[in-house]
Parts: sequence; structure tokens; C-alpha cells
Amino acid sequence: MSDPQEVAKAFVTHFYQSFDNNAQSLAGLYNDTSMLTFEGDQFQGSQAIVAKLAQVGKCFHNVKSMDVQPSAAGNAIVIFVTGHVRIGDAQGNPLHFCELFQLVSTGPGAYYVHNDIFRLNYGL
Amino acid sequence: MSDPQEVAKAFVTHFYQSFDNNAQSLAGLYNDTSMLTFEGDQFQGSQAIVAKLAQVGKCFHNVKSMDVQPSAAGNAIVIFVTGHVRIGDAQGNPLHFCELFQLVSTGPGAYYVHNDIFRLNYGL
Repeated sequence: MSDPQEVAKAFVTHFYQSFDNNAQSLAGLYNDTSMLTFEGDQFQGSQAIVAKLAQVGKCFHNVKSMDVQPSAAGNAIVIFVTGHVRIGDAQGNPLHFCELFQLVSTGPGAYYVHNDIFRLNYGL
Repeated sequence: MSDPQEVAKAFVTHFYQSFDNNAQSLAGLYNDTSMLTFEGDQFQGSQAIVAKLAQVGKCFHNVKSMDVQPSAAGNAIVIFVTGHVRIGDAQGNPLHFCELFQLVSTGPGAYYVHNDIFRLNYGL
């Protein structure tokens, strides 16, 4: 895989812009082996995952931090994002979120999301 | 690897109990290839990682959620934890945190932490 930091930065920018504009457009990032855990609910495969993400409705994500590490497998990286998200209304209350992605390379410049875990972080 | 959910549960319980009691005791969970990104700072290898964790000082972790997925490599799992932590004082202000671990199996019942990424989640 190319420079993990650059891949991660490009991916994260693309992911949240796409999510906020049209969640259906994320379908090509997942394949049939991809997994999403969203607030504890589990989904597998591109179709089920994108259906869930679209169900969340209009979102406004704001990324605060992005960390990346090479994974145990040489052709994969883990990306860890924190930030806040407004759901439904750009002027609404922002909620903390954190999200993990594992990207697996399938060829030069090509990859898919194997693992995706999303959690809101609220209530103390 | 045995049932990922059980492995993850046992690991997470052990990890935060050990961290809160004696961070030095975490050394055996990492090896020379292990990586820690702690609030954006990067460390590699068991010794450097545990030195960083011990530097945080006395902590009181409270786990709120734990999600687990099989990783891209068949012998590994990703674990995603959210919760809050009090640093220095059990009565102090709790801070939201989220943490990612990738555990890699090295044999029956044996594994090490390959990836560890920790972030506090505060400020909107």
C-alpha cells in the first residue's frame, strides 16, 4: 500500500464528504466480506452496510483527529477517527463520535473497507 | 482464535484492571512489532509503549462499550472500546475516551497487541 498517512487522509476526506452528501455513494468502498458495527448493531456486506448508513439520515461530520497504523497484515492499515457529528440539522447539537476503519489493499491504489466500527461517545 | 467476543471481553477486563493497578504489568501484552498511538504520539515496541502508559499516571477506567470484529487476517481481531477515564483522582472529572486494539493470535490461547490507538474525546 502507498504511504498509509496519505491513503488514510484521502479516504477519510472522501468517506465523510460522501456520507454527508449521499450515503448510497459509499457502496463501492465495501464488499461482501465487509463488516459494520454501528452503535452495537452488526451488518455484513456492502448492501446491508450502505442501507444502514443511509438510514441514519442527513449528517454533518466534523473530523477532529485521524490516526493511522500499518495493520498486522502487510496489505492493510487501521484508521482511527474522532470528531463530532450533527444528525439531521447542520445547526443541531454536535455529538462526539469515534470510528475505526481497516482498509485492505486489493491492488495499486485500490482498497476496500474490511472493518468499520462506529460509536457515539456521550453520557458520563 | 477462540470465540472473538470472549477473547475480547477477557482482554479488555484484564487490560484496564492492569492499567489502573500497575501499568508496568502490561508489558507482556506487547512485543517489538507492537505500535501505540496515544493522543497522536507514536511509540513502537513493548518497552516504549509501557513507559508511555506508565507516564500517564494513576488512572480509573470505566468501559461503556466494547465492539469486536474478526480482522482481515484470519488470526486477528479488532476491538473497539469507548468509556470514560479519571486521571489522577478517582473523584476527578471523567473524560470520554475511545481505544482500538488489534490482537494477533500466536498460538492456542496466546496473542499480542499489534495495534493500540488511544484518543480522548472532548471539546465540541
